[in-house]
Amino acid sequence: MSPALPSYDEAARMVAACAARILPPAAPDGIARVPLSAAAGRVLAAPLRADFDQPAFARSTRDGYACRAAEAAAHAWLRVAGSTRAGQAPAGPLASGAAWEIMTGAPVPEGADAVVMLEHVENNGERIRLHSARTLAAGENIVAQGAQARAGDELLPSGTLIGAAQIALAATCGAASLQVYAKPRVAILSTGDEIVPVEAEPAPGQIRNSNAPMLAALVSAAGGEPWVLPPAADSSDALDAALETALAQDAGAGLLLITGGVSAGKFDLVEPALLKRGAHFHFTGARIQPGRPVVFGEIPRPATELVQDQGRAQHQDQDGAQRCFGLPGNPVSSAVTFLLFAAPILAALAGRREHGPRFALARLKESVNSKSGLTRFFPAACTFGAGGLLAAANELPEVNRVSWQGSGDIAAMARANCFLVVPEACDSLAAGALVRILPL
Amino acid sequence: MSPALPSYDEAARMVAACAARILPPAAPDGIARVPLSAAAGRVLAAPLRADFDQPAFARSTRDGYACRAAEAAAHAWLRVAGSTRAGQAPAGPLASGAAWEIMTGAPVPEGADAVVMLEHVENNGERIRLHSARTLAAGENIVAQGAQARAGDELLPSGTLIGAAQIALAATCGAASLQVYAKPRVAILSTGDEIVPVEAEPAPGQIRNSNAPMLAALVSAAGGEPWVLPPAADSSDALDAALETALAQDAGAGLLLITGGVSAGKFDLVEPALLKRGAHFHFTGARIQPGRPVVFGEIPRPATELVQDQGRAQHQDQDGAQRCFGLPGNPVSSAVTFLLFAAPILAALAGRREHGPRFALARLKESVNSKSGLTRFFPAACTFGAGGLLAAANELPEVNRVSWQGSGDIAAMARANCFLVVPEACDSLAAGALVRILPL
Repeated sequence: MSPALPSYDEAARMVAACAARILPPAAPDGIARVPLSAAAGRVLAAPLRADFDQPAFARSTRDGYACRAAEAAAHAWLRVAGSTRAGQAPAGPLASGAAWEIMTGAPVPEGADAVVMLEHVENNGERIRLHSARTLAAGENIVAQGAQARAGDELLPSGTLIGAAQIALAATCGAASLQVYAKPRVAILSTGDEIVPVEAEPAPGQIRNSNAPMLAALVSAAGGEPWVLPPAADSSDALDAALETALAQDAGAGLLLITGGVSAGKFDLVEPALLKRGAHFHFTGARIQPGRPVVFGEIPRPATELVQDQGRAQHQDQDGAQRCFGLPGNPVSSAVTFLLFAAPILAALAGRREHGPRFALARLKESVNSKSGLTRFFPAACTFGAGGLLAAANELPEVNRVSWQGSGDIAAMARANCFLVVPEACDSLAAGALVRILPL
Repeated sequence: MSPALPSYDEAARMVAACAARILPPAAPDGIARVPLSAAAGRVLAAPLRADFDQPAFARSTRDGYACRAAEAAAHAWLRVAGSTRAGQAPAGPLASGAAWEIMTGAPVPEGADAVVMLEHVENNGERIRLHSARTLAAGENIVAQGAQARAGDELLPSGTLIGAAQIALAATCGAASLQVYAKPRVAILSTGDEIVPVEAEPAPGQIRNSNAPMLAALVSAAGGEPWVLPPAADSSDALDAALETALAQDAGAGLLLITGGVSAGKFDLVEPALLKRGAHFHFTGARIQPGRPVVFGEIPRPATELVQDQGRAQHQDQDGAQRCFGLPGNPVSSAVTFLLFAAPILAALAGRREHGPRFALARLKESVNSKSGLTRFFPAACTFGAGGLLAAANELPEVNRVSWQGSGDIAAMARANCFLVVPEACDSLAAGALVRILPL
């Protein structure tokens, strides 16, 4: 193993530094407005602000009786003076010695400072009294007006990935649509004379193109817009022509993924072809397996384009480049290196504040032998705790390698639901060890 | 707390048992064919089989020289008799005393039983010799024909969730399109007099409907087809009419989610309305917080419908019902109970073999106080290890509660990326403890 190659951590740090320098997409082309029902998976392009206090009124969290805590806690009988259900305007003021029937979600009448739960009172039809064994403090079972947010507060910053919770919050704020960043276009170029289309019957020595549809799915899942180019043959001319298309200004691809052609053989032409385009490489290889030959670089954009873009002129160093990955041709290597390195760059191009990847922990079921000097990523199956939770609440998510025949074994990866990470310093991991996984 | 309520584990077990009895969607309406580019997130409705051996030929995993391992390991000079690059037909047979230049992915010539890496040989232009410090064993750097799969092997069973890896595998098998299960239709009914549409300006005491768009997003993410009904007011008549629509045979909703109206107050009408439709309840409440009032039931379908469906007559007990959840009206409660209980039922209705939920582990940053007797789910933020990995390879994903004001606090949930699980038996969790999380 070449000592010049960066470790996984070093390579990840280079990627993170590059991602941190990427500016979010800019108006007008880089910003769109989508209805709330189409916002999941998109990225907020403007902060979400509260249009009212949240809650907009002091709100009961229980079915019961609004009252003055001091009176109720003295176990006095309190006259039920009225009733408010959810959706009704706040009543009040509440007379001294009185209680007010109230439903969950309803506004608490003026003058009341607590809600006693239905289940905690005696009720003689017209009056209620706190059970002798119960106490009640001011504020109990009430969310005060504005306790969650004040009108005008920034609730979510731009760059937030929108999921169900963010959609709920936007709805609360009256946002029937949201400003989101445009999805970054990602060019996907497979290389190799052995590649035939999915529909074709491969001749001896040929294989079908599985990397392009796989990467298209990975790009979509990571919030990008895949643009699958025709595969390029293993020749300089073919690669040059394909790069000309992929890197064309009007194509608008902020990220280029090339698979195959990055190892040491004499037909591995990707690095030379990129160098001809002025590429600068952050790394050409990393101490990982699978995925060791991965290449990460930037290709400067022609100066004319930058001059046109007056508004962002001060960021020429940041935006004057297209990012480019050379991913190994083996499908498992290609998937691993995408998830580890390309996905964070794509997240940054999509305007996200957090760039990933998202590791998790699990307990190792059976011991694993590895070799030190490389961070390894084995296709593995994790229970994710569902079975464990049912069996006993203190059992933990458990992970185990799936059998595989190396980085060309797509079938093994397709039976896995995560990668098991074996750190560079480890020769082996013992059964029962707490290990890191990268969920698929 | 009522001792009659099931614990989280007990409730989850009831849901899992119910999910296990659900049959996958049946042809013709329950099965569709989609192109590979639209298959992500869908569920395989037929097993995926290998159309050829995988690999279809003995394949080199390195750039180097195919040879006889016994000859190379003796450090003899071997004549380079030819060259095969990826995409070319297999050459051979390899003469005795000869080696054959070969590229990664290329077919190994007949007669060769190993590939020696380019970097591990001396090369005098016409001949190569293994470095004196190196050894080579038969089989090295070759994946034998059929090592990953034999033609006709089942590679993925029906019921597999399709992601990038499964798309890659399907492409390898020449499947340009896949048979998938139809997405189950999920009726979403919000209840409550206080609910106004997202576009409306709420009057005092009113709130905007955040649960319906939130649940629609959760249903979509879990592979269902959301069908948002107009909200129902807090009256028996309004609920009856809404249920009539939601449960209509021709509406085809296999799952009904109702939010609000399930706690103990006098306007909580959902359970009685469901009982009128013949509902049988698996549980009405569970020892969890938030989400304690959650209701899970089944509503029998009218007999006429079953008689028409001759082919599945023996499964009347399994399919003669619509599943129904009453979710608490508070948005955080609604999200938690959906993820814990409704998502597994939806996964089963979608034809998936695995029903979730997917828990993970993380290390707790700051101690948490809880109360025993309830399994608690706190909105929390997890680093997912990205930061930790960069700082030091042995740091772990770390989770911390986000501040929140109870189960109505959507803003807190929107700032979280997971729920922190505190088991029922715990009064508190210490900083540094290994804890379970439910990623959002």
